[in-house]
Amino acid sequence: MNELKPVRFVDVALEGQFWRERLETVLTHTIPSQHVQLGKHGILESLTLPEPPPPLRFPRNQHNFTVQVFWDSDVGKWIEAASYALSHRRDADVEAKIEAIIDDLEKAQAPDGYLNCWYLQREPDKRWTNLRDNHELYNLGHLLEGAIAYFLATGRRRLLDILERYVEHVRETFGPNPGQKRGYCGHQEIELALVKLYRLTGARKHLDLAAYFINERGSQPHYFDQEAIARGEKPKDFWAKSYEYNQSHKPVREQTKVVGHAVRAMYMFSAMADLAAELDDKSLKRTCEVLWSDVISSKIYITSGLGPAAANEGFTEDYDLPNDTAYAETCASVALIFWAQRMLHLDLDGRYADVMEQALFNGALTGLSRDGEHYFYSNPLDSDGRHSRWAWHTCPCCTMNASRLIASVGGYFVSASNDTVAFHLYGGISTTVTAAGTKVFLRETSAYPFSGSVKIEIGPESPTEFTVKLRVPGWAKGVSASINGEPVDVKAAVTNGYLSITRSWRAGDSIELDLPMPAERVYAHPAVKENVGRVALKRGPLVYCVEEVDNPGGRVQQLQLPRNAEVAVKSRGDLFDGIVTLTASAERVEAKDWANNLYRTTPPARIESELTALPYYLWNNRGGCSMQVWICEA
Amino acid sequence: MNELKPVRFVDVALEGQFWRERLETVLTHTIPSQHVQLGKHGILESLTLPEPPPPLRFPRNQHNFTVQVFWDSDVGKWIEAASYALSHRRDADVEAKIEAIIDDLEKAQAPDGYLNCWYLQREPDKRWTNLRDNHELYNLGHLLEGAIAYFLATGRRRLLDILERYVEHVRETFGPNPGQKRGYCGHQEIELALVKLYRLTGARKHLDLAAYFINERGSQPHYFDQEAIARGEKPKDFWAKSYEYNQSHKPVREQTKVVGHAVRAMYMFSAMADLAAELDDKSLKRTCEVLWSDVISSKIYITSGLGPAAANEGFTEDYDLPNDTAYAETCASVALIFWAQRMLHLDLDGRYADVMEQALFNGALTGLSRDGEHYFYSNPLDSDGRHSRWAWHTCPCCTMNASRLIASVGGYFVSASNDTVAFHLYGGISTTVTAAGTKVFLRETSAYPFSGSVKIEIGPESPTEFTVKLRVPGWAKGVSASINGEPVDVKAAVTNGYLSITRSWRAGDSIELDLPMPAERVYAHPAVKENVGRVALKRGPLVYCVEEVDNPGGRVQQLQLPRNAEVAVKSRGDLFDGIVTLTASAERVEAKDWANNLYRTTPPARIESELTALPYYLWNNRGGCSMQVWICEA
Repeated sequence: MNELKPVRFVDVALEGQFWRERLETVLTHTIPSQHVQLGKHGILESLTLPEPPPPLRFPRNQHNFTVQVFWDSDVGKWIEAASYALSHRRDADVEAKIEAIIDDLEKAQAPDGYLNCWYLQREPDKRWTNLRDNHELYNLGHLLEGAIAYFLATGRRRLLDILERYVEHVRETFGPNPGQKRGYCGHQEIELALVKLYRLTGARKHLDLAAYFINERGSQPHYFDQEAIARGEKPKDFWAKSYEYNQSHKPVREQTKVVGHAVRAMYMFSAMADLAAELDDKSLKRTCEVLWSDVISSKIYITSGLGPAAANEGFTEDYDLPNDTAYAETCASVALIFWAQRMLHLDLDGRYADVMEQALFNGALTGLSRDGEHYFYSNPLDSDGRHSRWAWHTCPCCTMNASRLIASVGGYFVSASNDTVAFHLYGGISTTVTAAGTKVFLRETSAYPFSGSVKIEIGPESPTEFTVKLRVPGWAKGVSASINGEPVDVKAAVTNGYLSITRSWRAGDSIELDLPMPAERVYAHPAVKENVGRVALKRGPLVYCVEEVDNPGGRVQQLQLPRNAEVAVKSRGDLFDGIVTLTASAERVEAKDWANNLYRTTPPARIESELTALPYYLWNNRGGCSMQVWICEA
Repeated sequence: MNELKPVRFVDVALEGQFWRERLETVLTHTIPSQHVQLGKHGILESLTLPEPPPPLRFPRNQHNFTVQVFWDSDVGKWIEAASYALSHRRDADVEAKIEAIIDDLEKAQAPDGYLNCWYLQREPDKRWTNLRDNHELYNLGHLLEGAIAYFLATGRRRLLDILERYVEHVRETFGPNPGQKRGYCGHQEIELALVKLYRLTGARKHLDLAAYFINERGSQPHYFDQEAIARGEKPKDFWAKSYEYNQSHKPVREQTKVVGHAVRAMYMFSAMADLAAELDDKSLKRTCEVLWSDVISSKIYITSGLGPAAANEGFTEDYDLPNDTAYAETCASVALIFWAQRMLHLDLDGRYADVMEQALFNGALTGLSRDGEHYFYSNPLDSDGRHSRWAWHTCPCCTMNASRLIASVGGYFVSASNDTVAFHLYGGISTTVTAAGTKVFLRETSAYPFSGSVKIEIGPESPTEFTVKLRVPGWAKGVSASINGEPVDVKAAVTNGYLSITRSWRAGDSIELDLPMPAERVYAHPAVKENVGRVALKRGPLVYCVEEVDNPGGRVQQLQLPRNAEVAVKSRGDLFDGIVTLTASAERVEAKDWANNLYRTTPPARIESELTALPYYLWNNRGGCSMQVWICEA
């Protein structure tokens, strides 16, 4: 092992309170309640191919599309999340539920291996006729990821066998040879699942199939054109108007701007980074870097939300980042974490880890409520109180993206290679790796993300030389570190965002890293028109927001933060098991003397007020009320 | 004639440059080009009921609806606008085009009088089965308004006869008697058309039918429920979810909040005000007053735009007035003018005239381009440059609302009764009225809306005592006036927004009214969350905006106006045949030193800059670029 690879989540014990609480909530509440919802909404029943098919729960829309075509994927994602949970602790009840699903899938599978419950039940003669819209390979991808996770958690391979048969069918169906379809999925996902299957099995053919789908995408004649014609439709009648929607507007290596549906883009870029690594494909790596720069420099919310527009669930223009209408689908932030982790393992550069962390704390975590049973699909940065978490969704993709991420979050903390161990995230974990042939117990202790005081204990079985790399976040200023109490010259030791220490380590060694976490004011690029004159508050990796419940007296949008007001850091043991809030003297524009006027020529009165901000990921856990990230500066 | 009635537009000569230009543009460019568009888009052809029916130009949406059901109304509105044009000057070519349409309508009309080209051609057995959605009576209303206008312009009554036959059929079909339908239209409009027909013919039955539709609306059992059941649908499957959408959620007299589709609401309120006047219906008048207060105090944009949301083309919550996503359909502002004029004639109160004027200059006028051939449907108050005028629209309702309003704008200036003449608007007109039995020539001269120096010449055939009322706009401060050079005590003479002078007038008398027009800063109620920390600029009746073409150097949203900066008034003969702009020293947040950063902890640099604002109604006439009404205060 020459290159850094993530240490798998099963090998990382979450010991810090922050992540233990989230993990426990997901294990205890989210996974079981999601199974209940899958049942309640007819998704589990659909696997039994009931005859006659029940009426559609979600009638086809004007584009003849229904979200029911991707119900299989919801099942796959739930199996994946539940299997990650099983990796933490086995649970006979959950396993029985998964086995029941596998029974259904086994019965449903066609003799030739094909397995898509929508088509098998409702349109058996229309298989593979609408890859553009109907998520057929996407469904397989998610089922496959579920099967791999279940196999790794339990050693049971029945579901994996079923899916491998299906993959073989797909391999026969798609490819450049006569009689094969030169197609690929309208919603990318199968590609990264196939890379996972390759990594599990070592079978190169899976990698090749993933590469085929990526390389074929956007080539001419365009597959979705031909497919539409074959259906008797005009290609130009595609509802999304442009193949930018699914990133097939041109071959992937010619793409330089991030466009279209955000989740599709992020899944595709994740697969591209996977393939760049596995195939040492430099052009694919370079493409990923160009696209990364594009999204990070002009298309990402401060919360790491991606895709401002509901119309295409995706990207629009550079700097188009409206706050209250932000779509910023939870899935897109989760998928950004996937992509960032992969980029980080192409090049150990803290820029990628910074985004991964930002997306984790401010994008993905926000998607799951404190009680573990309510969700955000879209993630606005400004609300008048009408935006609330829901218990389920027409399109429940985000629910299981939140649970599968959190149930496997330990896998994003540490990476190891022959001679190096690298810490990307902090928050209290322990693990054992092999470095330079020696087993090394590692423990990281901190109250991260609320404190930047991090202690790393390093316990090799015997004294051994290797390198420890500690991420120094891009937001951290005035960082100090010491080894066994001896100060380290941080400036000299940091490269690409990682403090790197090579020495002979022995049991009892420890590193202390201090990442100061003052409250910070953050400003957006002046081209983000909504944020001119506005400021956001951050501390450490956390983006803050003001929520009306902490700031009574009217909508929080009436608060203005004077440019010179000091923002104080306050520990609040009484809130959410202990968090840190930010407070400042503020001004509130006052409505009392407005009578029935909507407009007037005298400015509103300003009254002195206090402002309390809490981490954005926690908003809307105490009822509906107004919320704002970007605060008017006075 | 005891009560003030508007002097008809045909009796008011527009002499001022401002309105002459708009009228000439509409006569020369708008009316002819609209006929071309009606032809090009298949709307004229649809009147011939071609067999077999051509494929739908606009396929049915997921709610099984197509805008083609209200194509008849577009024809009706064009005839109305074109007839107003004919009232200004006859035009054989236009008349031939209208006659050709009448030929088609005559042939299309069913033996029983029914005349709806959609149903006659495509669903002949489904007449009157979906009043909720399909605009059947709405179409009649617009055709009827067209017929009345054409009759008044030309004396030709063939179209009026056709429509009167149709009205008779409607009268037989709808009503409280056995065998009649107790229905009313989902899109209100027929009601105000019937009042017009009553006023033209004196036939009380038309007024009664209008009152029937208004009084029946929202009563239980709900007609739209019953109608849906009769179609085999579940009433609760109504796509808009609530009958608030079409203001039939409760009987009209029980309505206290303005809800739902904005244009429907405004047309309905206009009809209610008409009926309140004609029937001396105090409860209807009181309802209008309550609804007026509601919309004016919390639901109207500073531009007079109505209805923030695209989803229902209408109203949402109090103070929900987003700028860049504002729907604010042009039609709604036009219809607000109708309503305001009717309220003004229930009570001569300048508050109504203020809104009428505001809607005229900032809402309705904005809908029509300088060239007279491009339109706005929605009217945002903030754009990054992507919002542009279009040459036609899927739903072309706004195009003919703009043209029919401007072609008849003279009708909003002056009202007269036995003993009083009242001026509501200024801008250069002349007319002759009869006051106290004497013919009185009146001429108002001004460069309004750019100057508030107004001169009124009063020329009775013989010296006569009567009252002259001059509106003193709510925005005007420090107003002065004189009669034949003798100062008037304005404060003492103004009641309800009108300066009232009763005396014996003789030829050669004149009044001078000076309405100072400094630049003004306007603030929104603090509950309008988008506008906290922002200011709008106004001068006289005009709302101003900053447009990038006048403010080069990046998006105008980067401009900030210091709180203490003086806003100067500047005559610009070089722009749009002469307008007044507003200028001020401003700051521009600068993007030059941002490199590829999207966020950073140091505030953006501010550079000194100049800000130039132009009247909002003129924006987007010089290409696409950024625009903003509410400017950040620094």
